[in-house]
Amino acid sequence: MKLVTIDCIPGGQPGAVLESGEILHLARAATPGTAETWLPPHLRDILGAGSEGLNLVRRMVARVEETGEDAREALRATGALLPEGTRLLAPLPSPRLIVSVGQAYRGHVAEMKGKPPSEPHGFLKAPSAVTGPFADIPLPPQAPDMVDYEGELCVVIGRACHNVSEEEAMACVAGYMVTNDVSARDHVPLIGKASTTPEARHAWDLVHMGKQYPGFSPMGPALVTAEEIADPNALELVTRVNGAVMQQANTDDFIFPLARVISYFSQWYALAPGDIISTGTPGGVGYGHDPKVLMRPGDVVDVTVTGLGTLSNRFVAG
Amino acid sequence: MKLVTIDCIPGGQPGAVLESGEILHLARAATPGTAETWLPPHLRDILGAGSEGLNLVRRMVARVEETGEDAREALRATGALLPEGTRLLAPLPSPRLIVSVGQAYRGHVAEMKGKPPSEPHGFLKAPSAVTGPFADIPLPPQAPDMVDYEGELCVVIGRACHNVSEEEAMACVAGYMVTNDVSARDHVPLIGKASTTPEARHAWDLVHMGKQYPGFSPMGPALVTAEEIADPNALELVTRVNGAVMQQANTDDFIFPLARVISYFSQWYALAPGDIISTGTPGGVGYGHDPKVLMRPGDVVDVTVTGLGTLSNRFVAG
Repeated sequence: MKLVTIDCIPGGQPGAVLESGEILHLARAATPGTAETWLPPHLRDILGAGSEGLNLVRRMVARVEETGEDAREALRATGALLPEGTRLLAPLPSPRLIVSVGQAYRGHVAEMKGKPPSEPHGFLKAPSAVTGPFADIPLPPQAPDMVDYEGELCVVIGRACHNVSEEEAMACVAGYMVTNDVSARDHVPLIGKASTTPEARHAWDLVHMGKQYPGFSPMGPALVTAEEIADPNALELVTRVNGAVMQQANTDDFIFPLARVISYFSQWYALAPGDIISTGTPGGVGYGHDPKVLMRPGDVVDVTVTGLGTLSNRFVAG
Repeated sequence: MKLVTIDCIPGGQPGAVLESGEILHLARAATPGTAETWLPPHLRDILGAGSEGLNLVRRMVARVEETGEDAREALRATGALLPEGTRLLAPLPSPRLIVSVGQAYRGHVAEMKGKPPSEPHGFLKAPSAVTGPFADIPLPPQAPDMVDYEGELCVVIGRACHNVSEEEAMACVAGYMVTNDVSARDHVPLIGKASTTPEARHAWDLVHMGKQYPGFSPMGPALVTAEEIADPNALELVTRVNGAVMQQANTDDFIFPLARVISYFSQWYALAPGDIISTGTPGGVGYGHDPKVLMRPGDVVDVTVTGLGTLSNRFVAG
């Protein structure tokens, strides 16, 4: 099942993508007198109801998939069925927690001439950076010149977990999304220039802050539920800039499989439904190219992951 | 005005503290047929309505402050007026963003034999770490031995701001709270032991992750609105462990005044009502003592800030 958040006030409304590409507006399609009318307005809260919440949505989708064209026409007339191309927000427009993994792919670590880490590395991204799957991303006026892309696979948590074992970890996954961990690299050169340990630490903090500008976490287009993805450790990820392939990798190049990543970070964070783990980027980021490939107004970055669709964002002057 | 979140399902209810110490349950005290009945169930959304939201609450508080004992007795009978000591959650139990400042006080930097930084330093704390002002805090089973306290003043944002000037910054503050940036120091020694730059960076990330365990961000007891705090850059902060004073400082020892801190971080983060900036800790943390003062089950840490009340949390076995 592919879940989306339809861009309408207030704060979006949950929808599901049909095989036709049309989007079922769940609140409008709810059958009166049933629990469907209780569906909360945020996907995060639907996930919070666990398999019961998702199964309720699955039954709604199945009902419409099986219905005839006349009934669909009636749904279209009431706005319960919306056309493909309807404006979307990020599936989880206001997530509580985004843990972002670094140095995740063997190829990327080798390209950076580093050694594979002995355990997963990560940091937090700010929910204030989240934007829609097809939204324009402003180049920050204060840091417009070194903005880079990082295509990534996201895991969405579906079950509260803290200190979860690797064996249990995958049962805590609700589904997957695509993201672009957009990064202003302005502070990266500071790392090499730091002459003291405190300066180096501050430079490292600034490198993370360069990922927090508004719009720097586009996500979507859909939250694809876990049963649709047979093996998340074997997905093709391709990032294109204005159509040219810049990153092409398979998640089988992960240094640590997803179960280990989830288990590892759950040691610190009490993960809850709707929390997001962004699983790091493969080789081919713009900053690693010679000459560097950095975003200019009008540049379009597409990130595609097998089975999850394509995130497509244009950079604009901020 | 002192705003609190009453610990009741679902997810707490907003309240205001009267001069008597009693707590006005805002939803129950709302006058039918007025906008008071629209008050949202989260303080964050009340803040989102700006001065209009806060003024509505102020009028409710003023009405009850002026009322006689008979009318108060009637409010008590309906649960609209609750006794002092009513269980509270953090004023903002599920904040969107917590920016935590490091190396903020001259005294603390000197004690650590460091140089004052040339600009504010900071990192993100996870909303999943937030807990109530009088809640027990579990020592994490996986890291129970080096848990430390850091008493801090928090700023709560009341107006959306991004790239705000220092001159405009204080107008974006809704109010203030007390917090304890509880920190498991297990990874601090790794910084000194790191033999490569990537190891040092990872150690630094782990130092931040040691602050993310469940319950490691107690906050409250109240969100005190800005007009009650004449000068937030001149507040006394005292941290006690089992009654003994461990940190005692004044925010006039800040290296950067609050206006600069808010303006600085707003360059990256698009701050919104209910977002929190925790302003760093003064000297006297347990790890800096000889011998180190680290939390054991039963230890109680109280953090008091002028005009904001006392946060009091007991550590328990996890």
